[in-house]
Amino acid sequence: MSKALTIFDTTLRDGTQGEGISLSAEDKLKIAKKLDQLGVHYIEGGIPGSNSKDIEFFDRVKDLRLNAKITAFGSTRRKNSLAEHDANLQRLIDSGAQATSLVGKSWDFHVHTALQTTLEENLAMIYDSIAYLKQHGLEVMFDAEHFFDGYKNNPEYAVAVMRKAEEAGADWLVMCDTNGGTMPHEVSDIVAALGGQIAGTARLGIHTHNDCELAVANTLSAVRSGAEMIQGTMNGYGERCGNANLCSIIPNLQLKLGYQVLEEKQLEQLTNTARYVSEIANVHMPVNQPYVGTAAFAHKGGIHVSAILRDARTYEHIVPEIVGNHQRVLVSELAGQSNILSKAQKMGIEIDPEKESTREVIGRIKDLEHQGYQFEGADASLELMLREANGELKKLFTFESFKMLVEKSAGKPVVSEAFVKLNIDGNSIYTAAEGNGPVNALDNALRKALISYYPGLNDVHLSDYKVRVLDDKEATASKVRVLIESSNVENSWSTVGVSGNVIEASWEALVDSFLYALLGQDKREGYEEIQSVERGLVNH
Amino acid sequence: MSKALTIFDTTLRDGTQGEGISLSAEDKLKIAKKLDQLGVHYIEGGIPGSNSKDIEFFDRVKDLRLNAKITAFGSTRRKNSLAEHDANLQRLIDSGAQATSLVGKSWDFHVHTALQTTLEENLAMIYDSIAYLKQHGLEVMFDAEHFFDGYKNNPEYAVAVMRKAEEAGADWLVMCDTNGGTMPHEVSDIVAALGGQIAGTARLGIHTHNDCELAVANTLSAVRSGAEMIQGTMNGYGERCGNANLCSIIPNLQLKLGYQVLEEKQLEQLTNTARYVSEIANVHMPVNQPYVGTAAFAHKGGIHVSAILRDARTYEHIVPEIVGNHQRVLVSELAGQSNILSKAQKMGIEIDPEKESTREVIGRIKDLEHQGYQFEGADASLELMLREANGELKKLFTFESFKMLVEKSAGKPVVSEAFVKLNIDGNSIYTAAEGNGPVNALDNALRKALISYYPGLNDVHLSDYKVRVLDDKEATASKVRVLIESSNVENSWSTVGVSGNVIEASWEALVDSFLYALLGQDKREGYEEIQSVERGLVNH
Repeated sequence: MSKALTIFDTTLRDGTQGEGISLSAEDKLKIAKKLDQLGVHYIEGGIPGSNSKDIEFFDRVKDLRLNAKITAFGSTRRKNSLAEHDANLQRLIDSGAQATSLVGKSWDFHVHTALQTTLEENLAMIYDSIAYLKQHGLEVMFDAEHFFDGYKNNPEYAVAVMRKAEEAGADWLVMCDTNGGTMPHEVSDIVAALGGQIAGTARLGIHTHNDCELAVANTLSAVRSGAEMIQGTMNGYGERCGNANLCSIIPNLQLKLGYQVLEEKQLEQLTNTARYVSEIANVHMPVNQPYVGTAAFAHKGGIHVSAILRDARTYEHIVPEIVGNHQRVLVSELAGQSNILSKAQKMGIEIDPEKESTREVIGRIKDLEHQGYQFEGADASLELMLREANGELKKLFTFESFKMLVEKSAGKPVVSEAFVKLNIDGNSIYTAAEGNGPVNALDNALRKALISYYPGLNDVHLSDYKVRVLDDKEATASKVRVLIESSNVENSWSTVGVSGNVIEASWEALVDSFLYALLGQDKREGYEEIQSVERGLVNH
Repeated sequence: MSKALTIFDTTLRDGTQGEGISLSAEDKLKIAKKLDQLGVHYIEGGIPGSNSKDIEFFDRVKDLRLNAKITAFGSTRRKNSLAEHDANLQRLIDSGAQATSLVGKSWDFHVHTALQTTLEENLAMIYDSIAYLKQHGLEVMFDAEHFFDGYKNNPEYAVAVMRKAEEAGADWLVMCDTNGGTMPHEVSDIVAALGGQIAGTARLGIHTHNDCELAVANTLSAVRSGAEMIQGTMNGYGERCGNANLCSIIPNLQLKLGYQVLEEKQLEQLTNTARYVSEIANVHMPVNQPYVGTAAFAHKGGIHVSAILRDARTYEHIVPEIVGNHQRVLVSELAGQSNILSKAQKMGIEIDPEKESTREVIGRIKDLEHQGYQFEGADASLELMLREANGELKKLFTFESFKMLVEKSAGKPVVSEAFVKLNIDGNSIYTAAEGNGPVNALDNALRKALISYYPGLNDVHLSDYKVRVLDDKEATASKVRVLIESSNVENSWSTVGVSGNVIEASWEALVDSFLYALLGQDKREGYEEIQSVERGLVNH
């Protein structure tokens, strides 16, 4: 394998500048863990001290003991002041981050217009800030904002900025195409030119934006001209048109250009990681996203499909499984069965592909996916279906009805109540409960009905709840998908429900969650004693 | 201006291979008209005779008398047969199209695997088909499928294919990166190499796919190496990861590389055309789409916004109006007071930063954002708050109560009902309505209550509905944020609601949506007549 490259992920900082992207501290910690598993080398977490979420992130991320280096972002010291008096620099040091990306100006126009200071003072701001951070033992990436625009306008000054940063001890000189307006051939030329004019104690990095739909190409140009660190975000999240998309750059570098970026096993996590981040950010991933989108290896044309069946290389540029994705054939139902069988095997369910009941459940899964269910994020619902098909699921209760009422009067708080009627062992059970929202009320009423028969549900805690509108053609009349993540002391699991009605979809996912919890218990305590379950309502 | 280039749009043919994209004959005719106004030179309409939609399109498009040349797509003749006996070639001639794109194989692997014939017979198929179409007076683009993969595998054969097509009289030799796996530097090298090995009676074209997120870059590489025709689609629609996106390529070529592509007035239609096509195709346009997306020139970071207010060039690579787009300033917790003030200015609201009421409303916005409101995606809610602070908002109705009931019994469909009580002009109004979900029922009941007083609401249509769970610590007991996008014939706007209760959050966003719709009307019809509004429930 050829030269190794360094991946610097800024989803948690620059990514959150994207419209509609807002991450809590908890979200950021989850994503950081996932990025670390993927194998990125640096994770930029935010701007220490800028807001309470970032403070909490830097505080708690230490406990995760990640392999990736946690990086804090900040600016050079203010003009006409001392680095040691600069509150922002102090916050970088206090954050406990191992590395820092320090942004400074390299375009003379910006020094005059945005900073409103002299070119000399800007150089001093850069030198002082880097030297101060290096004295405090931090690794320093110097992010040269607008480096390419700066170079095109005043190459001597842009290079002088980089040489000053290197002289101050910066470990990396990161060339930023902040406005995203640079063309790939310009990037090639400018990176090569800079490489010839620095001492070489610092290494080069590249940070591009997608305003011309060229962020990925510009990154590849820079790498081919000598850049060794790639800055980007998952799914290309970021301000305006987004940052360089690591989900495309990583496989391009590794599979097309022969660079060493991730381990093979890590690269197989790419699709999964991209989708996980989009779920947490609650941003719809375009189906046609390169490498990781659900349509990235989907074939529609009849001629294409028949050629693909002879040899997938006819219309696929890579084997999709290398990045953890898979081929799909649209319209005709040719794909998927092997996925489901391999999934069952992983869950320890022995199903015979030749049996009628197996073919039936596979047909049902495809049909549900067509309706909008997504089992990728809801393994527990899938496992329940497969075990049911295998005759392993017994009747726990018979559903009779639920009602859910939300009421609001002027000047009073909103009230939510739910009423659930079930039959367990021939006993009719009717419960009522309040909640601070409709789904919470349903959760409370259902739990109340089941708990005296199944005390194990006491442990079950719903840890995440997500709603996605599946198609926006009819807005409030369109289908929604609800994903619920549940946990008890030893385990966590996800379930799904889909309906035109958000309350019904939530009910489906809730029921699955409780069923799965009891299935787990059953495994521990003797399977035969569990009662069978009426799952008619859940549509499976 | 430098050399002119030819734009070949295949939205109506290759674009419809994209997942979820399906166009009727009527849709295709509408898009063709719009593309013609934009100024593309060729419009590929479909495959004549392949289905009734395409037959109807070719039949009716003649009456539109477009400037663009209408092009029909087909394949070379079948193996071991005569061109004059080939039904597909006959259909191309009969379609009445002025030009044809004829696809043929140039990758030896495909000749063997997909066509299952000899390399010689493939050359004969290409020669015979082109010669036959030329005899019938058609302009011929020869689409060399998989040209780049072919060249990498067997350059002599790939070049032989192109020379044979040229010899047969092809007007254009189009190099296709069908699988989308080629890197930009490879495209540069291969296009230059081919250019040196053909006679030059035919000109070169480029057709790329986006599987590596490089379709735009690959097109630019080909043009810089001598290609003169660009094939692509609006918004990059197409199979798998899509085709080359003309909405990015056209401005890159014209504004960045100095080629002559469209007239200035036409380029100003780019954003409008892109959005029109996405509307007709009923595909949601990503907000961050380069050049034409609603976030393409949107600014969120506080430092960026204050620089932009001094000089837009600080963070914009072009003047957005050149492509018919415009600047937007997003309001978010990352940003400061300057964002809100510049936002007010754009909304035409004169607020004085020194006034107590201004400081109060800014404080309230920040406080609401801290509670989880997100105004960057909800301009209309923000505008209502700012106008209210400015004393411009009057009382429309007094809220008394709402109730919302969802009921489900075993074996029966779920039922949703809503009841709304308001007071308008001293009249108590109590309405009930059903819906296919709880929010739809509320929408219907509220609309029913208001519509006889405000018939303008008849036009208002809710076009998107999004739910985001704000923190997952308590799952079903946690806060949710609802964003609603609404539109009428001339306008679209977004509103927000936040609550621990998804129904209450939806109600808030719904009320804001209707208030905003009436504000717009009021502006048109005389502001003073509008009644004042009780917005206590909406928490603002």
